[in-house]
Amino acid sequence: MPELETDTRVCDSAITLAFTVLGKRWNGMILGVLGGGSASFVGLRKAVSGISDTVLSERLSELTELGLVRRDVREGPPISVSYELTPSGVEIVPTIQELGVWAMRNLQPRD
Amino acid sequence: MPELETDTRVCDSAITLAFTVLGKRWNGMILGVLGGGSASFVGLRKAVSGISDTVLSERLSELTELGLVRRDVREGPPISVSYELTPSGVEIVPTIQELGVWAMRNLQPRD
Repeated sequence: MPELETDTRVCDSAITLAFTVLGKRWNGMILGVLGGGSASFVGLRKAVSGISDTVLSERLSELTELGLVRRDVREGPPISVSYELTPSGVEIVPTIQELGVWAMRNLQPRD
Repeated sequence: MPELETDTRVCDSAITLAFTVLGKRWNGMILGVLGGGSASFVGLRKAVSGISDTVLSERLSELTELGLVRRDVREGPPISVSYELTPSGVEIVPTIQELGVWAMRNLQPRD
């Protein structure tokens, strides 16, 4: 059975790298929402239906650590905290929108 | 605090739909590997580093059910089973590759 011997493909390392972030639940949606402009924590939680405070907080920390999201604190009173995309984050938005277009064409429930 | 009242954005339904599939660990990598051509179960498991047999089997069933992957059985002996993308699956491949390009530009470890 030569297939076992010769089938030595590995997933492209670039794609693997992309999905270490985007293959984690909620991250694509958070980036997609922030692609529409900065948002508060509460605004994000409402926009990303089903996410909990704890998980949203974790994801925002991770995305900030990765350099895709920036936490913006404006002195008050009251102090206002919002989240926005960095240039690296902005750069993924058109591709995320393409995924959406694909999904609407291909993942709709069938009759 | 008007922000709470007016911040009523919701994540784009198309993006939400896309990430019901792609935000699930491994799916993007499986589609990416199959974008390079059909593969056997063993070939896929090797190509998607770290996935278990059980999870790969579940993901392939889900992706087949969604109409993105097709299971191709060739009569033997020995019977040969391989997995390949459907036209809907093929259509996402260029966008997945764009995610990879973005990742290489933006997610590399910094010095």
